[in-house]
Amino acid sequence: MSETVPAAGAAPRLVLATHNAHKVRELREILRPLLPGLHASDVVGAGDVGAEPPVEDGVTFAENALIKARALAAATGLPAVADDSGLCVDVLGGAPGVFSARWSGRHGDDLANLELLLAQLAEVPAQHRAAHFACAAALVTPSGTEIVEEGTMPGVLLTAPRGDGGFGYDPILQPAGENRSAAELTAEEKNAISHRGKAFRALAPHIVAALR
Amino acid sequence: MSETVPAAGAAPRLVLATHNAHKVRELREILRPLLPGLHASDVVGAGDVGAEPPVEDGVTFAENALIKARALAAATGLPAVADDSGLCVDVLGGAPGVFSARWSGRHGDDLANLELLLAQLAEVPAQHRAAHFACAAALVTPSGTEIVEEGTMPGVLLTAPRGDGGFGYDPILQPAGENRSAAELTAEEKNAISHRGKAFRALAPHIVAALR
Repeated sequence: MSETVPAAGAAPRLVLATHNAHKVRELREILRPLLPGLHASDVVGAGDVGAEPPVEDGVTFAENALIKARALAAATGLPAVADDSGLCVDVLGGAPGVFSARWSGRHGDDLANLELLLAQLAEVPAQHRAAHFACAAALVTPSGTEIVEEGTMPGVLLTAPRGDGGFGYDPILQPAGENRSAAELTAEEKNAISHRGKAFRALAPHIVAALR
Repeated sequence: MSETVPAAGAAPRLVLATHNAHKVRELREILRPLLPGLHASDVVGAGDVGAEPPVEDGVTFAENALIKARALAAATGLPAVADDSGLCVDVLGGAPGVFSARWSGRHGDDLANLELLLAQLAEVPAQHRAAHFACAAALVTPSGTEIVEEGTMPGVLLTAPRGDGGFGYDPILQPAGENRSAAELTAEEKNAISHRGKAFRALAPHIVAALR
């Protein structure tokens, strides 16, 4: 699933607790400029080390990020980073929230998830369509350090998907100050303002310290 | 849809703003003991007077109840009562809430709605399954009186439907202090503790005053 295969003999130094290839790529792009000495092979996804994801039964993004990072640090003996992200809709009291990836009842079906959300909110007028993406990023080291940082990207929900970039609910959220959906931004533009970008930039100094 | 057909020539005195036969029956059962002089033909549903439901685009139960009662009072020239009810799940920040009836994307498909909710919450453990039914009941008179009363029925979400009674999400909510689902209660038991029963008993004195 990952686009990067570690070179033979190269031992990873940091594991990202995700099996989602989109997320591995996005997180590498965020980390790379902050860790200039880091090689691509230093950072791998859980799939690259054969780690299975734990049950994410937390009820907050921070709980789920910690559940995933703890499990992966324990399984690999390496510093592990995990994020948990989702879409929070004001008029739904913050839902889908931690249930974003399984909103349609089938985990990871992005199109079904966003189409269901649009159908649920079909009659909600523009002034009540405020929403934000939220991300909690956690670092857990084998020695027991645990750090969580959070970030948000506020915006409004569109009434139909727009754009081919990004993933998840990106095609139906228009970030504040933008006239494009999150799926119409370049990866660089999105990382600069995204919930995940903010959370990972806040976590980066702690990751650097853990890799020293 | 209604089980009661007004006698020829009997003019209704109060209109319930619903096309849902279950709700007409439940509301009549709640109102009857509180209004001893009332005949069945005095209270009819919107369907019995040929009134079409308005778009319910409020974002609270009270807003939707008032939207429905205002439209029906204006259309019929009679005092109109409407309720808006839904299921509020703590871990979803109060959702489905006003979106309860269209949770699956298709309005009024009770089974699809509750099955989707169970799938979304499949990994949520018992201690995080608190939920409540909520109801806002509104009275609007042609002379401009507007009253809203609210009621709740707290409980916990089950992991599978139980019981054949009730409607909506009744099979998956176990009211506090009960070992049965709301769909396993008799209509009388349910009305005694239900959100709708509480809201309508609070509204009843105002209805009596409006009919004098």
